[in-house]
Parts: sequence; C-alpha cells; structure tokens
Amino acid sequence: MAERTEISSLGEFGLIDHLTKNNEIKNASTIVSVGDDAAVLDHFGKQVVVTTDMLVEGIHFDLMYTPLKHLGYKSVIVNLSDVYAMNATPQQITMSIAFSNRFSVEALDEFYEGVYAACDRYNVDLIGGDTSSSQKGFIICVTAIGEVAPDKYVKRSTAKIGDLICVSGDLGAAFLGLTILEREKKVFLETKGVQPDLENQDYIIGRFLKPEARKDIIEFFAANKIIPTSMIDISDGLSSEILHICKQSKTGCVLYEEKIPVNDMARQFAYKLEIDPTACALSGGEDYELLFTIDQNDYNKIVSNDNISIVGHITEQEEGCLLVTKGGNTHKLTAQGWNAFK
Amino acid sequence: MAERTEISSLGEFGLIDHLTKNNEIKNASTIVSVGDDAAVLDHFGKQVVVTTDMLVEGIHFDLMYTPLKHLGYKSVIVNLSDVYAMNATPQQITMSIAFSNRFSVEALDEFYEGVYAACDRYNVDLIGGDTSSSQKGFIICVTAIGEVAPDKYVKRSTAKIGDLICVSGDLGAAFLGLTILEREKKVFLETKGVQPDLENQDYIIGRFLKPEARKDIIEFFAANKIIPTSMIDISDGLSSEILHICKQSKTGCVLYEEKIPVNDMARQFAYKLEIDPTACALSGGEDYELLFTIDQNDYNKIVSNDNISIVGHITEQEEGCLLVTKGGNTHKLTAQGWNAFK
Repeated sequence: MAERTEISSLGEFGLIDHLTKNNEIKNASTIVSVGDDAAVLDHFGKQVVVTTDMLVEGIHFDLMYTPLKHLGYKSVIVNLSDVYAMNATPQQITMSIAFSNRFSVEALDEFYEGVYAACDRYNVDLIGGDTSSSQKGFIICVTAIGEVAPDKYVKRSTAKIGDLICVSGDLGAAFLGLTILEREKKVFLETKGVQPDLENQDYIIGRFLKPEARKDIIEFFAANKIIPTSMIDISDGLSSEILHICKQSKTGCVLYEEKIPVNDMARQFAYKLEIDPTACALSGGEDYELLFTIDQNDYNKIVSNDNISIVGHITEQEEGCLLVTKGGNTHKLTAQGWNAFK
Repeated sequence: MAERTEISSLGEFGLIDHLTKNNEIKNASTIVSVGDDAAVLDHFGKQVVVTTDMLVEGIHFDLMYTPLKHLGYKSVIVNLSDVYAMNATPQQITMSIAFSNRFSVEALDEFYEGVYAACDRYNVDLIGGDTSSSQKGFIICVTAIGEVAPDKYVKRSTAKIGDLICVSGDLGAAFLGLTILEREKKVFLETKGVQPDLENQDYIIGRFLKPEARKDIIEFFAANKIIPTSMIDISDGLSSEILHICKQSKTGCVLYEEKIPVNDMARQFAYKLEIDPTACALSGGEDYELLFTIDQNDYNKIVSNDNISIVGHITEQEEGCLLVTKGGNTHKLTAQGWNAFK
C-alpha cells in the first residue's frame, strides 16, 4: 500500500474514532453502541446467545497469504457461524484487536473493511471492542451476540436415536484451499520472486479465505417450521463435530461415506494431490457448514433443499460412532481435527 | 510450582473440561453455559450491557511481578468495572486466553483460580470462551455481560451544567503500586538474587495487583434512588476520564485539587518518591473507581457516603476543563493517561 499512517499519530481514542466513524446501527435491539464503557442491548422477549473466538497470527492465520480484508471478514464469520449453530440470529459483535507496530492505520482500515462487509451482509452491529498493542503478531478476539425465540435454541446434547444426520453445503474444500496456499508459500520462500501457481482453484481458496456462515439454513428452518434435535457448526471437520454431538447426546452414529457432500473441483484437486477427499471432509476443518440432526418425521421437509445432505443417522451409544465406506467396510470415527496444542 | 503437566497432554477439549469442571451457574439468566457453540441467556424484561477488554503480556501486565491468580482476578474486575460504570449489574463473562508452550496446566489453574474467585465475589457466571496457542506471551480477552432495568443505564454523554462531579474511593495508589513493583524489578534484574524491598506498601501494591470493582456504589445508588447524570470508570486516570465525559456531554468542568481523594499511605509514598500525589490521581490510571456526575438536588443523598467524594462541578463547554490547585492557581486539564501506542 502506498500510504502509511503511523497508528501512534492518532492515539488510542483517535484510532477508535477513525475505525468506527462510519459504523451504522442496523438492529432495533442495539440501544447504545461504540463509545461508552459498554454497549446496551434490548432483546425484549428474546433469549440472548453469546459466543467468542480468538484468532492468533501464526496459529490460526498466516498474513503471507491472507489479505487483511478477508481476515476481518472471516473473523466475524466464524463467530456468526456459532450463533447460527444455536438456531439463533446474530445481532451484534464486539471486535478486539492487538497488533504490533508493523501495522499502519491503512492496514487496520483494510481489516475493518472486511469486518464491516461481514456486518453488512449478515445485518449485524459492531457495538464495541478494544484496541491494544501486542509484542508480536496480530491477535483478534470477537464476541458475537444473537437472539432466539424463548426455548427455540438448539444444543449439541439433544440428538435422539433414529434421528437423521444432516450437513449443509459441501465439506473438505477449505482444507484443500489451505493446502494449496501453504504449498505455494513454501515454493515462494524457497525460490523468491516466483509467482504463486493457484491453478484456478478459486473455489477451494475462496472456501478457506472467505467462508460464509449458513444464515440461509437457519432461515429455511424457520420458514419450514423445522427445529433440529441437535446442531453444531463444522470448524474442526465432520468427524470431530459428530463426535461432540454423540458424546454430549450419549448416542452413537453411522455416517455413509458416499453421502458426504464434496465439491467436484475439490475432489479432483484432492486426487491430484493424492489426498483422500473423504479424509478432507472428515478431518479438514474450517468449512463453517452446519451439522445437525432432525427427527425422521421431518425428512420430507429437508429433502427438497439442495443445500442439505443426509449423511447418516443416530444410533445407540453402545454401537459406537461408525463410518461405512463406499467399499462397504465399517471404521470407527476418530477426531483428527486440528489441535492447536500439538 | 513442583508439578508441571503439559497442556498438550490434555488437548484443547480436555483442557476446557479441566478448566471448567467446577464451574457453577449462579444466575437464573444463564440458561446454557460452557460446552456448546454459544451460551444462551434470558435477561427477561431487562436490557443487556456488553463490554470487552483485552490484556496483553508485556503491554498490560508483567508476569515477573504479577501472580497468575491476581491476573485472573484483575482481568475479570476490569470488565465488571465497565458494566458497573453503566449503572448495570454484571451477570456473565466469557474468558478467552492464548498462551505459549511455556505455560503448564498448573499455571492455567492458578490463573483460573483468580477468575473463579472474582466470579464468586461478584456473583457472575463464566459462560464460555476460547483457548488457543500463542507464538509469544499470554493474551487475555474477556467479555462481560450485565443487565439493567429498561432505560436506567447511565452514559458518558449526559452530564448537565451545574452537576456535581463525584468519585468513589481514592485515586493514584494503583500507579504508585506499579511504580514500586517496576523499581524492584529493575533492582532485581541488575543485582540478581536481591529480594524486593516492598517497604510494607501492601495498600498501594494491592491496589495495583488486585483491584476491586465498585459494586457497592451501584448498590448504594439503587438503595437511595440515585441515578447519576453520567458515569465512567477510572482506568486511565481522573483527568482522561473527566475529559471523556465533558467531550461527550459537550460541557466544561472545574475540579478542585484539595477535593481529590488520595489515600494517606499513597500520599506519603508519593512524597518519598518525589512524585506529586495529585499527578498520580489525575494521570496514574488503573484505579477502577467510578467517576460520575449527579444533579445538585441529589447532594444530600450522596454526602453521607464516606466512599464518595465531590471533586468539582460541570460548567459550560466554553469555560473549558479546569483544575483549581491548592495554591489557588487554575490549570487546563490534559489527558496524560497511559497510551498503549506511544
């Protein structure tokens, strides 16, 4: 970027003013927004849903291939996804960031452009936050607040035996997007100046860099009077998430490999890299799709929606958590999701 | 500490289970707590107050002289203080932390001991959060949620001309506590093995390491049917905070140096260090007292409370923001509060 304004030239309060000067309130429930000790919300007659996520440079993202605008967008999305996973509608976020002095005001502007784009698209108000220095790296902490009609929230722990297991969208592409970006980073570092060869893999790269949250699925539930029996968002891979549902619901499950939705371009690219596309879907993570269970009686309501795949069903706990492969073999599901501490 | 359990031996979900296994719900408004995509709250008939703060190692705290238990306690308190500053009652917090691999499970236990101690004392539920690795240092991000009767919240922007300016407790001691800890750290680093000489300065060190939030003042307001005309918590020093109120309320102010409450031990220690105690109160920060304005008609209600000092009054904007010294001179107030970006 051509211009570079030092953050110290604005000071903390000047920076906050600068970053929030075009911040507009969209929701009637937002009474007091940015600029006081706290925000005030009025979710009259609704229950309030709260979730929070931290994103740390070098752990959750790499600024070598993550544009700041995409990062701002994604840091909002991953939190909204958690709100939708409760069958709730996000209304507000707080955004706290810590950054070292290598960041300029222009860089933060780019980041906030993504934050505001996500807020606009999902009709969410930015109501507060904190800005701080860091000794090293960029750290993001978002809290999202949503609302849900009383007792219409959906937990992880309430799946019942016989329920159908469903997922939205397709799985595994975000992991493949990350894989290609990591590969090209390595090539670039080894042979400086070589331009990355992204092989027109816009779909999988987009799935990683600029995920969306499944607002449409929650709206489909409301329009069709469906309340899932349990729900979770897929951030660590299908396998890890269904194991959460089964553990908390005290059930088992059967998933069918052939039913797991994988995008065609993702599948082709996985074969090219000699990775199993099913492994990407089970353990890849970062898809931000919804995994949910429904009563069998709701089958007819679901089947018309092309964005939803039925991938298995809930069984007794003693039967364990199983995957039936295309070849007809049965494997125990294990959580190989990304573990930040290993 | 004798024992050291590697965090990697628990994994992310094991660690969360470990840190929250004794977490008990205290408030009826907490419907779903830790363990799902999000928490669910029911603040039926109340308005919801939300605030968030980030604390970064090396910027906001120094683990050389900050015990982890105190840090856990303080990281909750600084957020509750913001909720009280809205005339609201905190009910829930989320706690997100990122830490490098030099931290053990025992170290995090110590930190959470302080977190839970603050939650117990202030009757607040820990309802969620995030745990993550960091490349360097310990990063804490807390969001606090409170409730307030509809339209009883108090903003910064609503002080009126003629209002009395009040502060709770005493000011400047936390800065002096920090000063002595920094001094002894320097001596220790220069002459390894020398034990710190804290000169029995328990009061000022305690004010820095283990601040409290002014729950009692909010309860006093409720019991005496007082609604301040404006309020803010004092985290950056009296000067910076009164300037926020005046700027947002479009007013001026006069503060009287002789009225600013400074603890006797703090005053003596300031003289010993040849620092002006008033400068500590104006610009020191980290006191977490409340600064508020009241209508003159509420004078009789306030005057009986020994924990509240009247330090000045609100004037027309054109008159500026002024300090009248003990010697009778008049100075313009300037914000010399701690600025993280300088």
